[in-house]
Amino acid sequence: MTSPDKSKELVTKVTLVNDRVQFEGHVDGQPSVAIDYAPPLGDEKGYTSLELLLLSLSSCLGTAVATFLRRMNREVAGLEIMARGERKSTHPTGFHTIHLDVRLTSSDASVAELEKTVASAEQSFCPVFAMVKNNVEIVTTVDVVK
Amino acid sequence: MTSPDKSKELVTKVTLVNDRVQFEGHVDGQPSVAIDYAPPLGDEKGYTSLELLLLSLSSCLGTAVATFLRRMNREVAGLEIMARGERKSTHPTGFHTIHLDVRLTSSDASVAELEKTVASAEQSFCPVFAMVKNNVEIVTTVDVVK
Repeated sequence: MTSPDKSKELVTKVTLVNDRVQFEGHVDGQPSVAIDYAPPLGDEKGYTSLELLLLSLSSCLGTAVATFLRRMNREVAGLEIMARGERKSTHPTGFHTIHLDVRLTSSDASVAELEKTVASAEQSFCPVFAMVKNNVEIVTTVDVVK
Repeated sequence: MTSPDKSKELVTKVTLVNDRVQFEGHVDGQPSVAIDYAPPLGDEKGYTSLELLLLSLSSCLGTAVATFLRRMNREVAGLEIMARGERKSTHPTGFHTIHLDVRLTSSDASVAELEKTVASAEQSFCPVFAMVKNNVEIVTTVDVVK
């Protein structure tokens, strides 16, 4: 399992590790991550698949936002993104809406600048956004702490 | 950050932890997961956002497949899913195609039964599939090891 150029191709593996639904996630060069489902199907001994999706989406946004703000010579003293996914009540029980709350700590960035970088990231640069587009509603709020 | 009923709502948080693009992912009750980007943007000290998406998708499929096969009274002695995502060359550089290789170890399940459970999971039960539908081509192959 080698992934010579991550800009072109990414490779992961999941392996079932018990007689329920706990998996170990593997990526070459990284410690494994525990994946499990909530009871009664699983034992909650790891992240659920849908939590991994939220982490994927919010870290994708965070990476772009931090990068864009620094290119604008704005301070990024802290950046935190809380994601909350509301599930459908019928199968497949994915999210109908994902709420993303972006909290930036910066002495010189304005709320308007943060809003602009978030919009640009969501519309043009975040690959994970592009992959859930039109299937999930994403509602983003921003806040700047001085 | 509490998530009382994971069947209705899921909550995660990512926090920037260095002056590059390394984040820590948090879910209540779980150890944190390191998220980072490959060089030159990051230092590869964690999973990339796109690897988290592959883990999300493949564990979602694995959970459904293991559950369905057991309901059919088939042995699930081992289950492994390798995911390979091929990226677009222009922004947003998400996957145009994801290849999923499902390898089941079972003394009594047939390839046809595995194919059927995989198709059912992808079409009707896997929430992560539903959320990337029409945006990414997913190619699945299966194999049963006796």
